[in-house]
Order: sequence, then structure tokens, then C-alpha cells
Amino acid sequence: MVRNHIRSKMIEPQCCDDGDEHETLPLPTLPPMPRERVPLQKSSICSRSYFMVVMVFFHVYIINVIVLLLYVHYNNGPGDALVTQKRDEASAGSNHHKPSESHQQPSYSGFQRDMYLPRLEGIRVGHVQKVSLVPDKVHEMRTLSLKPLLFEIPGFLSEEECRVVVQLAQLKGLMESQVMVPEGQEELTEQLNLSPDDIFNLLDLNQDGQLQLEEILTHSRVRDGIWLTPENLREIYAGLKADPDGNGLLSLEEFRSLDSNAFQRFLQQRGVKSSQLVRNSRHTWLYQGKGAHQVLRDLKKRVTRLTRLPSALVDLSEPLQVVRYEQGGHYHAHHDSGPVYPETACTHTRLAANTSTPFETSCRYITVLFYLNSVEGGGETAFPVADNRTYEEVSLIQNDVDLMDTRKNCDKSNLRVNPTKGTAVLWYNYLSDGQGWVGEQDEYSLHGGCVVTRGTKWVANNWINIDPDYQRQARYQQLVSQQGEEDAEDEGEQSQASPEQLHTADPHQEL
Amino acid sequence: MVRNHIRSKMIEPQCCDDGDEHETLPLPTLPPMPRERVPLQKSSICSRSYFMVVMVFFHVYIINVIVLLLYVHYNNGPGDALVTQKRDEASAGSNHHKPSESHQQPSYSGFQRDMYLPRLEGIRVGHVQKVSLVPDKVHEMRTLSLKPLLFEIPGFLSEEECRVVVQLAQLKGLMESQVMVPEGQEELTEQLNLSPDDIFNLLDLNQDGQLQLEEILTHSRVRDGIWLTPENLREIYAGLKADPDGNGLLSLEEFRSLDSNAFQRFLQQRGVKSSQLVRNSRHTWLYQGKGAHQVLRDLKKRVTRLTRLPSALVDLSEPLQVVRYEQGGHYHAHHDSGPVYPETACTHTRLAANTSTPFETSCRYITVLFYLNSVEGGGETAFPVADNRTYEEVSLIQNDVDLMDTRKNCDKSNLRVNPTKGTAVLWYNYLSDGQGWVGEQDEYSLHGGCVVTRGTKWVANNWINIDPDYQRQARYQQLVSQQGEEDAEDEGEQSQASPEQLHTADPHQEL
Repeated sequence: MVRNHIRSKMIEPQCCDDGDEHETLPLPTLPPMPRERVPLQKSSICSRSYFMVVMVFFHVYIINVIVLLLYVHYNNGPGDALVTQKRDEASAGSNHHKPSESHQQPSYSGFQRDMYLPRLEGIRVGHVQKVSLVPDKVHEMRTLSLKPLLFEIPGFLSEEECRVVVQLAQLKGLMESQVMVPEGQEELTEQLNLSPDDIFNLLDLNQDGQLQLEEILTHSRVRDGIWLTPENLREIYAGLKADPDGNGLLSLEEFRSLDSNAFQRFLQQRGVKSSQLVRNSRHTWLYQGKGAHQVLRDLKKRVTRLTRLPSALVDLSEPLQVVRYEQGGHYHAHHDSGPVYPETACTHTRLAANTSTPFETSCRYITVLFYLNSVEGGGETAFPVADNRTYEEVSLIQNDVDLMDTRKNCDKSNLRVNPTKGTAVLWYNYLSDGQGWVGEQDEYSLHGGCVVTRGTKWVANNWINIDPDYQRQARYQQLVSQQGEEDAEDEGEQSQASPEQLHTADPHQEL
Repeated sequence: MVRNHIRSKMIEPQCCDDGDEHETLPLPTLPPMPRERVPLQKSSICSRSYFMVVMVFFHVYIINVIVLLLYVHYNNGPGDALVTQKRDEASAGSNHHKPSESHQQPSYSGFQRDMYLPRLEGIRVGHVQKVSLVPDKVHEMRTLSLKPLLFEIPGFLSEEECRVVVQLAQLKGLMESQVMVPEGQEELTEQLNLSPDDIFNLLDLNQDGQLQLEEILTHSRVRDGIWLTPENLREIYAGLKADPDGNGLLSLEEFRSLDSNAFQRFLQQRGVKSSQLVRNSRHTWLYQGKGAHQVLRDLKKRVTRLTRLPSALVDLSEPLQVVRYEQGGHYHAHHDSGPVYPETACTHTRLAANTSTPFETSCRYITVLFYLNSVEGGGETAFPVADNRTYEEVSLIQNDVDLMDTRKNCDKSNLRVNPTKGTAVLWYNYLSDGQGWVGEQDEYSLHGGCVVTRGTKWVANNWINIDPDYQRQARYQQLVSQQGEEDAEDEGEQSQASPEQLHTADPHQEL
């Protein structure tokens, strides 16, 4: 009873207290809110304050309808999507890869995600699906392999667009994709202060106490970018008298007797031809953001539609890489992006992550490769182990057949894509994590550019960089968008804005 | 100016004309809708009709809020799904396989679908995902292969459940899965009135004018269910003196000289052992619907959660098949369901489809296989070509090694699953069509039961039947649900309901 009494007392004087409203419009005391079947008191309805209540209801109602309409609109997904990130996320959410959390993964992921990455469906090798990327044209997308998930889209670029991209790259100028023998390696080894036994141990990948040819080859390819063949290595052994018993294996004793930098010095003396490098091409980078050539921006938009990813992710990825292979050019088989362990950082989120990690990789979730011309001879893109039943790194070099060698063994690759002007190929370098985000590296995405036997080969790469660590990616995007806002302000006003200017610039503060 | 004049004239007399409202509530003339900053006219606000307007607004507002809340509720999906079909469809829609129609397939499908089939994600061989199928337990689901999409779920059934299912099957009694040599084949051939040349042509699959051993074998396995080996066939040739030149090939002339039913008669004389049949087991069927044993119904519910399919689809599928293999039992490699061409009907929708088609198959989209005991020796489930890079039917029998022979060559299968009590394996016999429905047959789903070398093997099969023709499946479900309603009425009232009874039975007609 006491309580009720207090409540009714509180309601009466406060019935029209609407916060700010109260200060600007001091109203007379009002009766309790009218309800149906309550005998009407004409006098109480006939008041200005009652009119205010009506107006508040009316406005709340209108706002409500607008909210409902907006909610329905954003949930059903608009017809032409991929304009703002919010829309993308909404459509991605209703897409392939949002896990049905009620059935599965009841509480295994420790945090809430509001971004899901749709993944294209491969169905089966040879499957063709129609995709709508530009107005008035339907593209066909053919599945080339499931491991990696790989598609080919003929006519992705028009003849004219290919011409413009090549021209823009030429205007900007191309640089060697790989320099010859990197210098300063000797100093590095000295700094690390490793004994020959330590180095032997590091090189001996399978820890069998002997150095196989493959172990030396793998090391020289990764460290020096020099593509030695088993024959090259036997030559070097012979030149250095490194393998007296001639069994092709280096024992710890044989290794000890070698000078620590004998290999490098031997190579430098002998000279390394560009055909003996991992990569023999020239390339440049073309920015695709605001102010870039319309063709480049259109291309980015089309890639966004093709991948069905939130446009923010595509926007924050690497620029377009344009590559030229002369006759004799090649790129031996490699992964566009490395494996990701807990202690691996992504290049693009490294600063935002604000941690020092021992390993780093480019985190290229997707590669979209464009052929800018039809090559006269050779220059195919080879996927040596596409759709193989198993992937074993050691079995890539067997019986002196090195499947990664695109100058020699492209014909032994499981899959080769012919370079045809305007065609795009898209593949995923990472698997799904099963919860709508980037998972493990897809080792089957190993690929290379076969040697160009006649003519020149022009290609371009669009990589979509996504951190497999969702939180790091989210933090990065937040940071960049804040930076972007600040930049936009700086750009628009070209001077530090005064507090008053900032105030009037915000439309929400006008009322 | 004229326009503005007309508008203001229209607004004034119609300010409160709300359609129907006007007829039921003849109100006195009202002033124009009050707007802010318009000088208030006290007299016009002081009216009963104005109060009515307020109340209408108030109620519409409340209804609006309720609608908004309901909409949000049903769009986010309820926590415990899989109770009604509608819910399933909603959750399936937000799941993996709803194609984002705004991006892709702009108008290629000729009709609107309101059912989408989610498909589990395999990610990669060896990937383990946690699934919540029963309260208080989390199951682990391991990907065994991607072609076919195949999973293993240990502990899907408890020891007790395995025991109950075996006992129920024994109570019902098991029958031979395959009878010996089917009779009446001679009459059929006579009725068809085919010449030896016609038959030769039908048997000559590769149309090279000769009958290879493989062509005869394939035929005898499909038609007679007799699993002849190449050696068996050579024996038969020798016994019938069918291949005088002894090259293992039958020419048209050699074939002509044979009596039309020489093979069958030879086999019948010699006798066929059960080990020479395609399938050597006994089985029975257990109904899982209303009134069935709780264990069987629980099992169905769990399968529904595992597959994440609408429960209506699971409910309308085949009963549970329980199979017993004695020592020496086997099932040679086969597909659980055949390829689907436009002229192929599904067994389960055939009546509803109301068309006569030349071919028919069981349309088993998914197989869920349960191991009801741990077999002492042998009895593995073999997938000869799982995750093979390519599938070629002819290469299944090469150099006298027949990969489909589960009595001889299980060790050469790409994948073998050990039968472990309580474990379930699930695989898809069909691919996705890329638009959230059943697509082509997955040929890689070829599998068989390896010979049981020691003990007895008990398994059970749950098949989910879905017609790859969406319209036929939808028609079938509609038809069956109507039938179901009628049955339910018959059951509940045990007599024909009078029109009045029907009337009151429908809650929507009470008002």
C-alpha cells in the first residue's frame, strides 16, 4: 500500500517529464494516462499538454515504422549489394558459411563474430555456374579443382581493360621480381654465431644424421632464391670435393670439412643466371583506391562481387600486382602465402596486432590472377598437386623429377591453366575454419608459372589479405577506418578544425 | 502555385479520413492535422473524436512493436531448432547452402524455392568438428574424405542402443538380402524378342565390335546379381567352348554361335554359392515413426540434427535397415543410389510425380551407416576411389585387379572404415546443385562391405531420400502431409467427421 501510494504520487507530477523536454516546456499538472472504459473527463483532455502526449506518440510511431522498414530491408539484403560493409556482412551472414550455431559449436568459439566469409562452391571439377558481375553480362565460372578450390572465369576483363592495365604498368615502370644472389648473408651467419654442427642440425630436416640433396635444395631455394637442381648440386659437390664417397649424401664429417660459406662463394664465382632463380620476371604495383584509374577501380569492384567478400576486406588488401615474363621467364612452384601458426603474424595486420612474433606471412586468403594477354608459347599456370589424394612435401622431388620445377616438369603437373587474354582464375590459399572464417593453409594451392617459350606474358594478381586470427583482423579494420576518418577530415578541411567547426560538422548535434 | 492550392484544399477536409474508419465512426468535421508551430485551437482538441484518434494511434503503435519483436525473433532463429519444419527451413536458409541470389544466379532458376538443404563442411581430410546432437554430450565428427563428403562420428549410439536395435531386428526376423539366381530371365529375353546381334550390341559398351571380359562381368553383376571374376568367366568360356581363339574376347561370330541362354544355364548347372553373389547378408526394416520404440525414434531425431536437414525430409525417408553379415559375408562395391537423368524417377516420389519414366532409382541423398557391434575380423567399409583425382568406371577393373571386389581387394581401396560399435559414418551420395538442392550423383561414393573374416557384423542404414527434382519432392511432401492430416483425423475420431466437427476442429475458424 505504501509503495503504491508512493508510485502514484511519483507518476502524477512526472507524467510528462521527458528529460530535456521538461526544461524547455514547463507543463501544468496532468491527469493519469487515459485508458479505455475510464469515464472521460473532458476538462483533462482539453489541454495543451495532452496534445503534446499525442504528438510524442505520433512521432514514436513514425520512428518505429521506419526502424521496422530499415530492419526488413537490411535483413533481406538489397538487390545491388557490396556497396557498404554493413550490407556485405548482412548478405555474407545469410550466405554459405555462417555456421548454424544452434546445432553445432554450441559454445566452442570464445567470442561473438559479426563478420562471416562466404566461400564459393566448387561442386565438382568441370561444374559451370553463371555469375553476374557487371550489368548486362553473365560470366561463366568453371571449377578447375577442389583442392585447391579453383575457378576459371573467361572474359573477366575486356580487351580494352587488359590494354589499359598493361599500359599503366608500363608507365609506372617494372622492377626485377628477384635480384640475383643476395649479399650480406655471410655477416648474418656470423652474427648468429652458429657452429657447423648447429647448421648441420638445422639443415637436416628429417634428422637422419645425413644431408640429402633435397634438404640442401629446399634450403637454398628458400634462403637464397636460387633454384638448384640435383645435377647442379652434384656439380657443386664435385667442384668443392665435398662428397668424397660420392653417394650424394653429406655426413656431419663431410659437412664439417666444408668452409661455412663455401656454397655461396662457389655460386658467386660461377655466376647465377636469371633462369636459375626461383622467379624470373619483372613486376610493379598499381593502387586501386580513390583517385585510381577507373579501369582499376572497376576491376576491384568486380573482384569484390566475384569473391562475395565484404568490400572492406577487399579494399584493405594489397594493390594490384602486374607481372611481365619475357621469353624464358618462369616462376617455380610456390605458395602465395604461408602456413599460419599461433606465433605467426600477418604482414598487413602486424602493426595493429602490436605484438612481436617470430614468423610472418602475407595471409593472402584468395588469389585472383588475370591473364592480360594470350601467350604465344608456354606460360601456363601449373598446379602440380591439384586434387591429389594426398599432399606430401617430400614426394614432390622423387627420382630426380622435381614437380616444383616449372622449367622442366610442367607437363607432369596435375593441372595446367592456359593463359588466355581476359580470363581470370581464382583460388583459395587457405581452407575454411568451419565457422565462417579463414582456416589452415591449403597446401594443394602450390602453383607456378611455366616457362614462356615464345612471346611475352602479362598477368596481374589481386590478393585478398585476411588474418586467420579474427580478432586481429577486426582490430586492424577498426584502426584503419579510424585513420581513414581522420584523413578524410584533414583532406576536406585542409587545416585543423576548430571545436565549433567540428560541432557544426556533425549533423546529429544540430538539434 | 495552383498545385499547392489544390494540395492544401485536399488536406483540409480529408485530414482524418482513414478509409474504413470513416464508415464505422462518423466523426464531426475535424480541423487540419495539428503540426508543430501551428497556433493551437483549444476548442478543436477538446473533442471525444480526437480522443479516438489518439487511441487508434496508441494501439497501432503497440501492434507495430509486437510485429517488430516477432519479426526479429523468427529471423534470428530460436535456440532449440528442428521441431517444426518451418523452423528448419528458416535455419537451413541461414545456413551453408542458401545461394546469395542477389550476386549469383540472377534469374536462372525458373521458380521460387522455400526449402534449402544445408550441407556439412568437410574442410579437409582429418578435420574434426564438434557437434551437439544430444543434451549433455558433445560428439566429434571427423572428415574421412571429401569425395565423397564422408564423416565418422564415434559414440553416435550407446552400447545399450546398439543392443536394442539388434534385438528389435532379431524379433522382427531377417531375410536374405539377395536370392540366388533369379528365374524367369529366359522368358523376359524371349518377350523382348532380341536377336543375338541386338544383344551383342547392348553388351558391347565401348562399341569396339568385341566383348571384353569387363563388359560381360558388368552385365552379369547388374542383371543377375552374380559376382563373376575374370577367372570365373574364363572357366565358363572354356566349359562352353565359347572362345576358340582363347584371347579372352568374344567376337560377334563367337557370340552368335552361343545359345542365347547358355550362360545362365551353365551357372544354374554348376550352382552359385552365396559368396559369389553381389551381396551376402540378411536384413530387415524397422519403422521409426510414431509408436516405434523410443530408441529408434531418438535415433531418427539424432540423424536429423546431424544432417541439419528439415525434419520432414528425414521423416518421409525409408525405414531403418538393419543388416547382419555372418562370417564370410560381404557386399561388393556399389552405389547406394543411381545417377539421375531427366527421365529418371525417384522410388519415393514416383506416385506423387504421376509420370511414367523408363528409369527409377532410390534417390538416397545421404547414407548414415551405424556399426552395431565391433567385428572380430574384417567387415570394414571400403571406399575404393575416395578422394581419387579422377573417376573412371573402366579403370576399376585393371590387370585382373577388380577394385570393386570386397572379398579380394579391400586392401587396395583408398579408404577403409573399421566397424566399431556405436560409431556412425555419414556420406552424401549426391553433390550439391550449387543452389541449395540435390545435384548430380557423386560417383566417388562407391563403397562396399569387406568380407567378414571372423565373427558376425551388425550394421544399420538410415537413408535420407530426396528427389533431385525440387518440384517433385515438394509435391510429394504436400501430398503426404495432406494424407497424414486425414489419417490423423481418422485416428482421433475413429469415424467420419461431420462437417460441423471439421469446422470446430479448425482453430482458425473459431472466430
